[in-house]
Amino acid sequence: MSSVSTDVARVLIAGSWRNASPQSTFHATDPNLNSALPETFPVSTWDDCEAALDAAAAAAVELRKLPAEKIANFLCLYADKIDSAKDSLVDAAFAETGLARSPRLADVELPRTSNQLRAAAEACRTGNWALPTIDTKAGIRSCYRPLGPVCVFGPNNFPFAFGSVSGGDFAAAIAAGNPVIGKANSSHPETTRLFAELALEAVQETGLPEATVQLLYRTDHADGERLVSDPRVGATGYTGSRSAGLTLKAAADRAGKPIYLELSSVNPVVITPGALAQRGDAIVKDFVTSVLMGTGQFCTNPGMVLLVANNDTEAFITAVKEQFESTAAGTLLSPAVTKSLGKSIQTLASLGAELLTGGGDPEPDRCAMANTLMRVDGTTFLSDPEGFQTEAFGNASVVVVANDLSQLCEVIGQLEGNLTGCIYSAEDGSEERDVEQISFALEPKVGRLLNDKMPTGVAVSPAMNHGGPYPATGHPGFTAVGVPASLLRFGKLTSFDNVRQDRLPALLQDDAPTDETMRLIDGQWRTGSV
Amino acid sequence: MSSVSTDVARVLIAGSWRNASPQSTFHATDPNLNSALPETFPVSTWDDCEAALDAAAAAAVELRKLPAEKIANFLCLYADKIDSAKDSLVDAAFAETGLARSPRLADVELPRTSNQLRAAAEACRTGNWALPTIDTKAGIRSCYRPLGPVCVFGPNNFPFAFGSVSGGDFAAAIAAGNPVIGKANSSHPETTRLFAELALEAVQETGLPEATVQLLYRTDHADGERLVSDPRVGATGYTGSRSAGLTLKAAADRAGKPIYLELSSVNPVVITPGALAQRGDAIVKDFVTSVLMGTGQFCTNPGMVLLVANNDTEAFITAVKEQFESTAAGTLLSPAVTKSLGKSIQTLASLGAELLTGGGDPEPDRCAMANTLMRVDGTTFLSDPEGFQTEAFGNASVVVVANDLSQLCEVIGQLEGNLTGCIYSAEDGSEERDVEQISFALEPKVGRLLNDKMPTGVAVSPAMNHGGPYPATGHPGFTAVGVPASLLRFGKLTSFDNVRQDRLPALLQDDAPTDETMRLIDGQWRTGSV
Repeated sequence: MSSVSTDVARVLIAGSWRNASPQSTFHATDPNLNSALPETFPVSTWDDCEAALDAAAAAAVELRKLPAEKIANFLCLYADKIDSAKDSLVDAAFAETGLARSPRLADVELPRTSNQLRAAAEACRTGNWALPTIDTKAGIRSCYRPLGPVCVFGPNNFPFAFGSVSGGDFAAAIAAGNPVIGKANSSHPETTRLFAELALEAVQETGLPEATVQLLYRTDHADGERLVSDPRVGATGYTGSRSAGLTLKAAADRAGKPIYLELSSVNPVVITPGALAQRGDAIVKDFVTSVLMGTGQFCTNPGMVLLVANNDTEAFITAVKEQFESTAAGTLLSPAVTKSLGKSIQTLASLGAELLTGGGDPEPDRCAMANTLMRVDGTTFLSDPEGFQTEAFGNASVVVVANDLSQLCEVIGQLEGNLTGCIYSAEDGSEERDVEQISFALEPKVGRLLNDKMPTGVAVSPAMNHGGPYPATGHPGFTAVGVPASLLRFGKLTSFDNVRQDRLPALLQDDAPTDETMRLIDGQWRTGSV
Repeated sequence: MSSVSTDVARVLIAGSWRNASPQSTFHATDPNLNSALPETFPVSTWDDCEAALDAAAAAAVELRKLPAEKIANFLCLYADKIDSAKDSLVDAAFAETGLARSPRLADVELPRTSNQLRAAAEACRTGNWALPTIDTKAGIRSCYRPLGPVCVFGPNNFPFAFGSVSGGDFAAAIAAGNPVIGKANSSHPETTRLFAELALEAVQETGLPEATVQLLYRTDHADGERLVSDPRVGATGYTGSRSAGLTLKAAADRAGKPIYLELSSVNPVVITPGALAQRGDAIVKDFVTSVLMGTGQFCTNPGMVLLVANNDTEAFITAVKEQFESTAAGTLLSPAVTKSLGKSIQTLASLGAELLTGGGDPEPDRCAMANTLMRVDGTTFLSDPEGFQTEAFGNASVVVVANDLSQLCEVIGQLEGNLTGCIYSAEDGSEERDVEQISFALEPKVGRLLNDKMPTGVAVSPAMNHGGPYPATGHPGFTAVGVPASLLRFGKLTSFDNVRQDRLPALLQDDAPTDETMRLIDGQWRTGSV
């Protein structure tokens, strides 16, 4: 391997930065300049995957032997290191993603990332994520246990908070006691590399197995499929494009390996006539802010607005159009995102959506498209519901104008699974019957139902569900955000039946492992010992 | 449809017993006589599935509107009706399965079935299955909500307790608020029909939507695949053969529909030298009872025993062989089970397992095979681990004799996912280091780890896990037994973000819906209102 150029970034396997088993190389792009960045990254062959899998499998065994406290210490130390390295992380991410240094990267996403790791550490330390359940009469005790090495494929749009070796899936997998093999998103490999360096330091300083965190940059598709279905893997977390995600899902499904996906979502926002009549201007502002924030590159970006035809609706559309036109278009994350957004807009237009503003060609000197608003009536939507739900990821949204409430509900009934759905309605209670009907149709379609609020904020709360029915995700029972619930994805339910006291996991022994540990003991959730 | 012979049993769709859209017909077999029973049952075409799906989708909407109390009332009334109809249910099941009337059917399985329904009713009434979570500061509340119509494919071996319209999957799906489309197991259609009659009565008397419980007897394979992947379906519960289950899984996976499977398991039992030395005779008795009970037709039947070569092991094997030979072989459930058992024994023998007793041809006049014990050494096992894990469902078991502890752990390392794994060891603590090694290797392979106890009893406890890693089931995070945990399979996690108080589900409103409802309110599990 020493013949590989030292100019190519090294992969992190089994605690050491090694030259990759090279297949080819790639560069990330600076989207503000639409030009390649200097660092060269390797596309690994299966040899690297094989080495990482072996090391991860061994690390998984060691991790199961360690006290939870030790894993929690790692997560906290890593969080501290991230906070300390803020400037270099922000520089790298800005160069690779074009996201604003401040407030976005430095003041919002970075603190969210380190705080997420700390919240996961707390869930790990108390064991409260694992739903420890003790039935003293039957002599049976159960909890969720680590399920084995987790592969994390992070998305392009959150280089920190959903990063392969720094984000929510990573934090959840580690806190549940599993090693992680991170696959960097190809649009920000250098940022991911910096995180992996910090993680390795924290691993070493807290005495975790060195292969607890490993990093590859890219593999070919076939090796990706082989990776998620390998017998050594416990589960996979994937956030990204629908097509790549579904290919990985098919491979994992065939092997009986859990894979948690976050694929696509248009996040419908329903605005009732009463809401528009009472506070149309405020809702225009809410909506424009939500759809253009981060150049619309959020999983929960409101890509579809559902309205009922009337004068207020026309006024709403006109006002949104004006604000789209008067607001400078932000930079998109990468040439791939720009291309995909252009293609989605074309698809929607070709189906019959009217282009109210935007569209056209991307800017030549940076990754950017004009803010785009499209319009379709309910009848046209219903002629091709699948087509009109094409996700336009970026600073674009589609307004669907239904003839009446009944058609509005018909449109909702044709929606695919989404992460979120919002309802803005009159504040005086005058529309409760209509809202009941809308809520009833919308709730089964979405993971999170909102009232009078745009969906783009995803609070880290135990009650958060960042999930939803297929194809928003692969399973309607799991969330990617919200500690401790997100950890359950990476746990294996295990019962211990008549198992001798001193052989039980600490979480299930008579003595409570921490003062904060809540356990379902003989039917009551409580702290304290048995 | 009136041209169809009234001799063919009717399917239950949308609250009425209708003539099936007929494709062909079939009969169940009395396994005690190895002859066809008189009742004729239809193989439905897609028309029946379509009608059932439409009705179920409408029922799902209605069920979401009902108070939990009403669904709980149905489950309790149905349980009472089952208890009252004991004699006819036992007669039908005895004729169709050959399982002993008493104690098995009348005194064990029937009370388990009605009590399971009552436990599910209680979980439904309190909402405690749905993990209601309230974050007052963030204004977000979440719980599991019904996910839509559930298809239940019940197994052959528990005509009551795992029956398509009476068993654990049924109870869990209904208690979670979903209608059920039951697909009767073809070996006991008449028993299933009797349950559906009782269920329909209870549905009508408690005022649930009539399509809450529907019943088909059989479809062709293509229609089964279409059913589990239909957009109107929320999820599927399947217990049965691995090949049919994997075909359904592939179809459901492609459509992004959850499917919960219980497929196959050899349930390894490890017996250490210390255990044999101290209480070999007692363990022989435990083992023989466990493996021959119900003619070995339990999902958790100990189909594999792992031992270390020594004189006590030889004595154990000899004693088990003698007891297998001196115990009359029970009746198997059906000609299909008999055929499959014979085939598995042949496969194991052809790979090199030594036939110690049993094997041979099935009995001609009833469904039965001699009690069968086979033996293989560790080295031979390791030459084809997959082959030697062929499940021999019935009164048969394979003894694997390892050279030493190290080889024993190597064998365990090669095991597929199983529902259970047991360790019998010395009671004086003299083997703790060895047991730690064995436990550590075995735990990741099984859903339930037992000490000094055979796996065949599956207590209905909140701490029970009747699940396990693939291919024992399709996902290591879920259990098919144990209320309330088993209900989570049929729930969709839903967050309500800033949703107005009176629009929230009762479970998430400030006022606690029942005095027993436990909710995670601002980080504390407790009863009472917000």
